[in-house]
Amino acid sequence: MKYEGLLKTHKEFLPISKNTPLITLHEGNTPLIRADQLSKELRLNLYLKYEGLNPTGSFKDRGMVMAVAKAKEEGSQTIMCASTGNTSAAAAAYAARAGLNCIVIIPNNNIALGKLAQAIIYGAKVIAIEGNFDRALEIVREITSKHPITLVNSVNPYRIEGQKTAAFEVCKQLEKAPDVLAIPVGNAGNITAYWKGFKEYYEKGKSKSLPKMIGFEAEGSMAIVKGEPIKDPETIATAIRIGNPASWKGAVNAAEESKGQIDYVTDDEILDAYKQLAGKEGVFCEPASAASVAGVIKLHKLGYFSTDETVVCVLTGNGLKDPNTAIDSVNAQPHIVNDTEEAVMDAISKLTKQKVRQE
Amino acid sequence: MKYEGLLKTHKEFLPISKNTPLITLHEGNTPLIRADQLSKELRLNLYLKYEGLNPTGSFKDRGMVMAVAKAKEEGSQTIMCASTGNTSAAAAAYAARAGLNCIVIIPNNNIALGKLAQAIIYGAKVIAIEGNFDRALEIVREITSKHPITLVNSVNPYRIEGQKTAAFEVCKQLEKAPDVLAIPVGNAGNITAYWKGFKEYYEKGKSKSLPKMIGFEAEGSMAIVKGEPIKDPETIATAIRIGNPASWKGAVNAAEESKGQIDYVTDDEILDAYKQLAGKEGVFCEPASAASVAGVIKLHKLGYFSTDETVVCVLTGNGLKDPNTAIDSVNAQPHIVNDTEEAVMDAISKLTKQKVRQE
Repeated sequence: MKYEGLLKTHKEFLPISKNTPLITLHEGNTPLIRADQLSKELRLNLYLKYEGLNPTGSFKDRGMVMAVAKAKEEGSQTIMCASTGNTSAAAAAYAARAGLNCIVIIPNNNIALGKLAQAIIYGAKVIAIEGNFDRALEIVREITSKHPITLVNSVNPYRIEGQKTAAFEVCKQLEKAPDVLAIPVGNAGNITAYWKGFKEYYEKGKSKSLPKMIGFEAEGSMAIVKGEPIKDPETIATAIRIGNPASWKGAVNAAEESKGQIDYVTDDEILDAYKQLAGKEGVFCEPASAASVAGVIKLHKLGYFSTDETVVCVLTGNGLKDPNTAIDSVNAQPHIVNDTEEAVMDAISKLTKQKVRQE
Repeated sequence: MKYEGLLKTHKEFLPISKNTPLITLHEGNTPLIRADQLSKELRLNLYLKYEGLNPTGSFKDRGMVMAVAKAKEEGSQTIMCASTGNTSAAAAAYAARAGLNCIVIIPNNNIALGKLAQAIIYGAKVIAIEGNFDRALEIVREITSKHPITLVNSVNPYRIEGQKTAAFEVCKQLEKAPDVLAIPVGNAGNITAYWKGFKEYYEKGKSKSLPKMIGFEAEGSMAIVKGEPIKDPETIATAIRIGNPASWKGAVNAAEESKGQIDYVTDDEILDAYKQLAGKEGVFCEPASAASVAGVIKLHKLGYFSTDETVVCVLTGNGLKDPNTAIDSVNAQPHIVNDTEEAVMDAISKLTKQKVRQE
């Protein structure tokens, strides 16, 4: 019951010195929810690692708490990133927590402010440059290499250290390592981090086996699957819409070492899994998160799994980050009826296809 | 680490029989985060019970898991509520989890579908009646009293049973009962539930004291403070915009028995607390949630607290439920500059008011 945050809990596995401030928003310690319906349908023992219940709603909090703690330890007063999404939200929240400034650089091309609502309310200063996203990242790298400002984009090595703790939790929650770990692949830092975590846990004798790592890119941005960067990546799963993954090698390495694979799923497969997760299991995730489950469904059809294998799907972010996809992906129009008991009962009978009237 | 959900964890305190299905989405077990900055400023030992990290993003999950488990135990195939917000989201998620139908009744008066995004993606059937919200609730009561459909609005008695578990968690997390529990008051079910929880825990000898209960209505819907129902309640804190609280008596009783009070806060005070929570503590909640912290700030100015008293503020919902308030409440316009290192550095220096250039 008493959980004191990611840094304190996993201290022995993290680059923590006596000077590292153990800041926390109680990130990590996220639920591992058994997917009862999908387990039955796929004849698997399927679990969902629901990272959407991190403090800012995505797995990014795990790496960011580590990166911000080290920035503070090193005397930095300002952190900085180029991001329009989950990274900026996490950076801004932990900067607020640690009493640091947070600068977010974005391209000035009509980015919806809704995506930045979190960063802004946490107090980040947003600077829009007259250039594209690549230029924004370039400027961030230039500035942080010359000035006492800490870069917290994914090239910050502490991010992966924090993120690997999710693998420890999965092992603790299952009381063993899973047979297979399925995960969405965008920038590929997360699959790299999980694999590092599983290996370290195994090497310390805390688990007795290693999972196969299977990662799934979205078809429209499947750089690793194709073996070359994608110039204009496009997918509904915006959180993994990345054409040139920063941790490309880490992902390939995780798949090879673990005898898993990097594969892809289509937007339709992603949306289908997204709806099944909410409608059958009661778990609402970001579209990108559903790539892991979409991938498992795809590989199941190809006979990839043995019956009753323990498979953990990582759901990287909270569905509340992107309510519009939810609305657009289902028929959201309410059924309009008169305000009488009879009219409503008729509608219920029709909608539930059940006999609900008392005789 | 291994948490098996609210029903299993708190079984001895809940109306659970051997036939009750112990469904779970891992609701409860939410963080108690120390508010370091505000503690310093207010000279209190202030904590935030962050209920926004429940599976559907609000405290309603605690009561709903209990209500839906009992509905399933009793053989119901359909649950039903009149709601346009957090209740419908929780009802739909747990109905999906339990394999039940969920019917949500709303008035057909241009309700923004965004508010219903969660209910819809979890598979609830939404019926809009040609009548107002009161009529919707009337019809729900009529139908559920005659047909084998379970009412899960707040009059369902199991809701408060599930909700009271938050009080147990607070006591466990603090290793004692707090001196004061501050909580937003809308329908007043939650203050009623916490008080019931604190008393039961105390009576079983699991805690050695009881907190003072202080509840805060929004000024525009302060029925209990005024002593009469409010006809057209209005406040930015939509989750507590209720003119005639269902658990009115429970709230008054909690305040009286505990020697606390029911007070009110203005929308400006709520928004100010909302921004302070995000900007100083890194915690993003629904506007209504911030009423608890706004109330503590208000009473602090009046000398209500002793120095270093342990005060827990309940934050009832996740800020991601209502990103528009975040955008509207701060100056969200990015600072537009050229895409040069110099231009960005100048902006940073101005925005952070810090000397960040390396000499």
